[in-house]
Amino acid sequence: MSSSNVKKVALAYSGGLDTSVILKWLQETYGCEVVTFTADLGQGEEVEPARAKAQAMGVREIYIDDLREEFARDFVFPMFRANAIYEGEYLLGTSIARPLIAKRLIEIANETGADAIAHGATGKGNDQVRFELGAYALRPDIRVIAPWREWDLTSRETLLAYAESRGIPIEMKRGNASPYSMDANLLHISYEGGILEDPWAEPEETMWRWSVSPENAPDQPTYVELAYEHGDIVAIDGERMTAAAVLSRLNQLGGANGIGRLDIVENRYVGMKSRGCYETPGGTIMLKAHRAIESITLDREVAHLKDELMPRYASLIYNGYWWSPERRMLQQMIDASQAPVNGEVRLKLYKGSVSVVGRKSESNSLFDMNIATFEDDRGAYDQKDAEGFIKLNALRLRIAGRKGASFV
Amino acid sequence: MSSSNVKKVALAYSGGLDTSVILKWLQETYGCEVVTFTADLGQGEEVEPARAKAQAMGVREIYIDDLREEFARDFVFPMFRANAIYEGEYLLGTSIARPLIAKRLIEIANETGADAIAHGATGKGNDQVRFELGAYALRPDIRVIAPWREWDLTSRETLLAYAESRGIPIEMKRGNASPYSMDANLLHISYEGGILEDPWAEPEETMWRWSVSPENAPDQPTYVELAYEHGDIVAIDGERMTAAAVLSRLNQLGGANGIGRLDIVENRYVGMKSRGCYETPGGTIMLKAHRAIESITLDREVAHLKDELMPRYASLIYNGYWWSPERRMLQQMIDASQAPVNGEVRLKLYKGSVSVVGRKSESNSLFDMNIATFEDDRGAYDQKDAEGFIKLNALRLRIAGRKGASFV
Amino acid sequence: MSSSNVKKVALAYSGGLDTSVILKWLQETYGCEVVTFTADLGQGEEVEPARAKAQAMGVREIYIDDLREEFARDFVFPMFRANAIYEGEYLLGTSIARPLIAKRLIEIANETGADAIAHGATGKGNDQVRFELGAYALRPDIRVIAPWREWDLTSRETLLAYAESRGIPIEMKRGNASPYSMDANLLHISYEGGILEDPWAEPEETMWRWSVSPENAPDQPTYVELAYEHGDIVAIDGERMTAAAVLSRLNQLGGANGIGRLDIVENRYVGMKSRGCYETPGGTIMLKAHRAIESITLDREVAHLKDELMPRYASLIYNGYWWSPERRMLQQMIDASQAPVNGEVRLKLYKGSVSVVGRKSESNSLFDMNIATFEDDRGAYDQKDAEGFIKLNALRLRIAGRKGASFV
Amino acid sequence: MSSSNVKKVALAYSGGLDTSVILKWLQETYGCEVVTFTADLGQGEEVEPARAKAQAMGVREIYIDDLREEFARDFVFPMFRANAIYEGEYLLGTSIARPLIAKRLIEIANETGADAIAHGATGKGNDQVRFELGAYALRPDIRVIAPWREWDLTSRETLLAYAESRGIPIEMKRGNASPYSMDANLLHISYEGGILEDPWAEPEETMWRWSVSPENAPDQPTYVELAYEHGDIVAIDGERMTAAAVLSRLNQLGGANGIGRLDIVENRYVGMKSRGCYETPGGTIMLKAHRAIESITLDREVAHLKDELMPRYASLIYNGYWWSPERRMLQQMIDASQAPVNGEVRLKLYKGSVSVVGRKSESNSLFDMNIATFEDDRGAYDQKDAEGFIKLNALRLRIAGRKGASFV
Repeated sequence: MSSSNVKKVALAYSGGLDTSVILKWLQETYGCEVVTFTADLGQGEEVEPARAKAQAMGVREIYIDDLREEFARDFVFPMFRANAIYEGEYLLGTSIARPLIAKRLIEIANETGADAIAHGATGKGNDQVRFELGAYALRPDIRVIAPWREWDLTSRETLLAYAESRGIPIEMKRGNASPYSMDANLLHISYEGGILEDPWAEPEETMWRWSVSPENAPDQPTYVELAYEHGDIVAIDGERMTAAAVLSRLNQLGGANGIGRLDIVENRYVGMKSRGCYETPGGTIMLKAHRAIESITLDREVAHLKDELMPRYASLIYNGYWWSPERRMLQQMIDASQAPVNGEVRLKLYKGSVSVVGRKSESNSLFDMNIATFEDDRGAYDQKDAEGFIKLNALRLRIAGRKGASFV
Repeated sequence: MSSSNVKKVALAYSGGLDTSVILKWLQETYGCEVVTFTADLGQGEEVEPARAKAQAMGVREIYIDDLREEFARDFVFPMFRANAIYEGEYLLGTSIARPLIAKRLIEIANETGADAIAHGATGKGNDQVRFELGAYALRPDIRVIAPWREWDLTSRETLLAYAESRGIPIEMKRGNASPYSMDANLLHISYEGGILEDPWAEPEETMWRWSVSPENAPDQPTYVELAYEHGDIVAIDGERMTAAAVLSRLNQLGGANGIGRLDIVENRYVGMKSRGCYETPGGTIMLKAHRAIESITLDREVAHLKDELMPRYASLIYNGYWWSPERRMLQQMIDASQAPVNGEVRLKLYKGSVSVVGRKSESNSLFDMNIATFEDDRGAYDQKDAEGFIKLNALRLRIAGRKGASFV
Repeated sequence: MSSSNVKKVALAYSGGLDTSVILKWLQETYGCEVVTFTADLGQGEEVEPARAKAQAMGVREIYIDDLREEFARDFVFPMFRANAIYEGEYLLGTSIARPLIAKRLIEIANETGADAIAHGATGKGNDQVRFELGAYALRPDIRVIAPWREWDLTSRETLLAYAESRGIPIEMKRGNASPYSMDANLLHISYEGGILEDPWAEPEETMWRWSVSPENAPDQPTYVELAYEHGDIVAIDGERMTAAAVLSRLNQLGGANGIGRLDIVENRYVGMKSRGCYETPGGTIMLKAHRAIESITLDREVAHLKDELMPRYASLIYNGYWWSPERRMLQQMIDASQAPVNGEVRLKLYKGSVSVVGRKSESNSLFDMNIATFEDDRGAYDQKDAEGFIKLNALRLRIAGRKGASFV
Repeated sequence: MSSSNVKKVALAYSGGLDTSVILKWLQETYGCEVVTFTADLGQGEEVEPARAKAQAMGVREIYIDDLREEFARDFVFPMFRANAIYEGEYLLGTSIARPLIAKRLIEIANETGADAIAHGATGKGNDQVRFELGAYALRPDIRVIAPWREWDLTSRETLLAYAESRGIPIEMKRGNASPYSMDANLLHISYEGGILEDPWAEPEETMWRWSVSPENAPDQPTYVELAYEHGDIVAIDGERMTAAAVLSRLNQLGGANGIGRLDIVENRYVGMKSRGCYETPGGTIMLKAHRAIESITLDREVAHLKDELMPRYASLIYNGYWWSPERRMLQQMIDASQAPVNGEVRLKLYKGSVSVVGRKSESNSLFDMNIATFEDDRGAYDQKDAEGFIKLNALRLRIAGRKGASFV
């Protein structure tokens, strides 16, 4: 892309060192105006300081948005309706935040007349894909600038030298004390790099930031009761609250009980394997609890169909296809399935474990304690029916056996 | 089926009260000879006492088999290659034992010239289906007698009265002290009934038999290292051992650390929901560890394909289709995928949690620590490639956007 | 079921011999009142004569309904949105009519205070399952009487003798002149039995009723143009018409051109294989045309997801689960996908073949003739992007190759 | 990639104008030695003339291989075991040839010490992907040169000018008389471009090369009988022959009867829709016949599982992943399923239509003409079993109905 054509670019700006260098680099290289966008997604850091930093670099249009509620309500909650897990383990904490940032960046680009967007994701990761697929889907003619794929500041040294030469404060470097590359939002915090690059090395205890170790968790279990409406948590221990408040509260409860740590090697969409560690205290509780409320309210075949489609749904989110028509199509089916998912789940949190200890649904339970006995008065279940059920299900196997069929 | 036609029946005989009553009832009602078959599947109870009981009732052909190794090697291990979980939670501990019992029953029927088999499963559960589908698949003309679907001893009182009147010792009742219906084998122990019939009621601590509570587990974590060959564990902490020994050892380790308890509501194949509690200490460790060794040795798309087919594979086992051609077909694919699944996994067991803390594979790791740097000398990854990758993956979304397509 | 408990039964009554015998048998055996229900589903026979016959047997509540429009609009059309085919060949003509009959039977039972329904399907086929699953889903406490599974009139001779003895006219026998068992409705006509029971035998030309043979079809092709809105055909050759009229017209056009004959062996839900021949002239055209309009209006991944779920959707309908929550859930997704499926398809019909010769969509085409050239002005496609696309898609294969991985 | 590093390149060389220009351009631009590879895949053109042309341009290592048998046996036949169709219509004729060319190119590169390969596919199509994914999978360090993505000879004029200036005969242009871009091999011939770029335009009759029009086909049907072993055709009308001979013969028979024409809009892997016309006479017959032999020899659930996985398998081939581990894994399952697929299929070919008129399998038929009557003597089917079968399958629907559940 010819750099001369860009007039204004909307930059996803954290206020940290890397995106500050990017901001300056965009101004210098593209000679264009930069609009900054800083989002509070619940990462636990102040976002307001980004304003002064951006102003200091001459930015005139500065967006600082609190997106926590939208993030929880319109992205995290819909995803949990699907019981989404990537590769059997990962709760998609980073993946699910990117489409919201992409959407807001495009909205800001549209509002400010920007013809391009820029982000600070590298050329080796998934995040570049997630940002850009979202952006292209929402505004097909947008130009995307990914400095890490373009510039020559590819080493830490050259980057720091650039920063110094332009007067960008080095202490801005986010996660200064940490040897890890981290990403955080209301759903999780992630760690990559450092000693994690050796998949045989155990992370040291000091790495983890959001949860105590199971060893240091309280010796008494914590019980919590979640109320569901249409698959979403609407109250905790009887207190009604918003989606973001639910996530916050569950993060506190989970973190205090050592819940939600994960250490995996995952397959990136760009083709390589990478080691990542994650803390997802609230999300870990939510997944367990959602399956429990579904276990008494969902029809068996609906549940199984959801389970079979889940890996694909999770991959779509992991790979950056939130804004694709196929994700939306799946979502419609998933959302439709949640109409009867109403009721309460009771959980025990203890030293790293979440256990379901009760589930009920006044309006929608399909669990019938009396199925054993209702034969007499209502005729629903006659044990003799089982014989016919088995005989016909066995018929094809018997015919094959008679014909001497042996499959292997 | 006319009772007059049965000459000899092979009975799955536990030696407990229920199957002793069945034994007698078969002799009286069908006037046929009964062959008993008692299996040691690792349930943790003596099987030899069944001999004297059967002899006392006049049985002349008595089979008492130690099937632990076959069970672990040919049933449990193949199933874990698939990472099989039913409905997101259940490790299929009961389900996977039934096809082996069905197979052995048919073998015994063939050896002894029996024309029928009988079992003690009720008409409301899954086990009748698993026994009978297996039996029909392996011997299409077999007759199946399921006394619980036929007789009128349908209450505890009538059953006890029958036993008393025939001199069958009541103290034989298995699980005498327990209010729960239980089933155990090398992979797990299960609990149903009693207060569990209320899905809102938490089971009391005294129910659990195979694991200490997380609260009572040691304050120090236990580390364990598992060695894999072709997807199966072949050694623990450097000590090579058989499949059954692996399961035993992991059950000890897991149980001692409070690992593997599960409390769920599940969907039975016969159409109703039921509450079950399970302890699967070794299996819980195995599932986590197997995913970890696969995470560095399996190709991404192979892993994803396995994940998408897993729910169906698990349902086949749950529903009793182990001996079906479709399960075998899936197994061939799964087994083929395990050729490169070799290496070691290191785990931390602590108060109910299993955490992977390391994984390596000298021969088959696809994890490349140097992927970041091998660009220079080997050209595998050029960050600029990501732009093209994203642009073409976005093309259909962009075209749709230009055409004003909005899916929802 | 005790026959003494049934007070009134709603019978699916064709007016033919078999269901007339059933009517009488119900009156005699159950001593209950019978309500008859006869539907015009486009089978091409008069339904009104059923009235007099029912009256003659003392029936006081007689329902004769023209359901053709509802059948086409609410059953056939939704199914074709999914491109449903069972086992790669069968267009589900019989399967799709049963849920409508089940629904109407239950409605009539509710209106007339009947506590049971009855049908004339045998105990070996799929139709009993389809009727009864529908009935149970729509009214869980309904009693179902399936005379063919209960009575002893199991041979043609005993049935005829029974009819004669009760004064039921034998000439009522439907399909008198045909050696085949047939079923017809707006979507198709089917043939089973007779020489078809030998799967090596070719049906004689005289069997086919709805289509000329390709040999006898016109020597000039017929062109036809179909207009689609949201996946449904709304006009033929510019003439707007209802769903039932669409099916009728396409049946005429297809039948006249020798289109839509099918000769297969299929797998019944009850476990056996059976030979069936079908004529589905209009449906054959519809399937081809629907794929064509989707080919230019549907996103690739949406289309592929539909294709992957289609066999399951088709099996649900074949097996009788139209009224299940899982079918409805899939339908919601399918219907949602059809929003952009608008436009026209032009077809050539000739001696047994349907060929698509044109497709267009003014509002929703995703086909871009200028994709080749729009690089210059809009930047959508840069051939150089393909290199990055390929390189990253190849990355996992290259890493595996370097590590010496060989899958097989 | 720096052009200076390439020493020798193996070129997929058709002998036509485009690849002749590429040959010269490689010599000039890369200053490297070129090895040519020309394959006879059954395209119906002489391959030997390519030798003289290559020699004339100074090529010293010239490979001309007859790959027809390998193509049919190891690529086409395995694919047809899966009943593979892309997007419901396309028989993958071009897609399936590319992996063989990729494999042979790499073999030749290895034999001749070439460090790169080159091909004549454009940057907008699927073939570049198929060639390159195959090449990278089989030799991870190979360099790939795709001139159409690199050079500036992007218009017909510049290309011709280049050819003229280097003395490359213009008459070499393949398909000189045709306005279409074509590709042919034993399985099919394809047409793109020209008026086909308007998806509303019907191709003129003169475009088609391999089949007569249905109008011009014989007025008498042709019957043909195919014999299968393990899913592959081994004999036609009793004459045993090789895979390539089978394809040839069926192409003749199909082409003579107007069979196998297809006109579609398909979704390319690179993200755009494109119009293509295809003639696949033999393949069209093979697909129909293979389904027929499977219909009597395959278990229902095996067949359904194959059907559900087929779209994914077809996409893998379409997208160029023949040499991927996931395609191989699926193939193992598919091949395993074909063990019992033995027998004969009888077909009628007539004016564009293929109809199955008979199928049999002495050794493996699961079709039982007597299933209706074998109840009496063998007890396989008792109509009363159907009641239990239906009742238990309906149980979840009834429970939901009682609880007032309404899904939608």
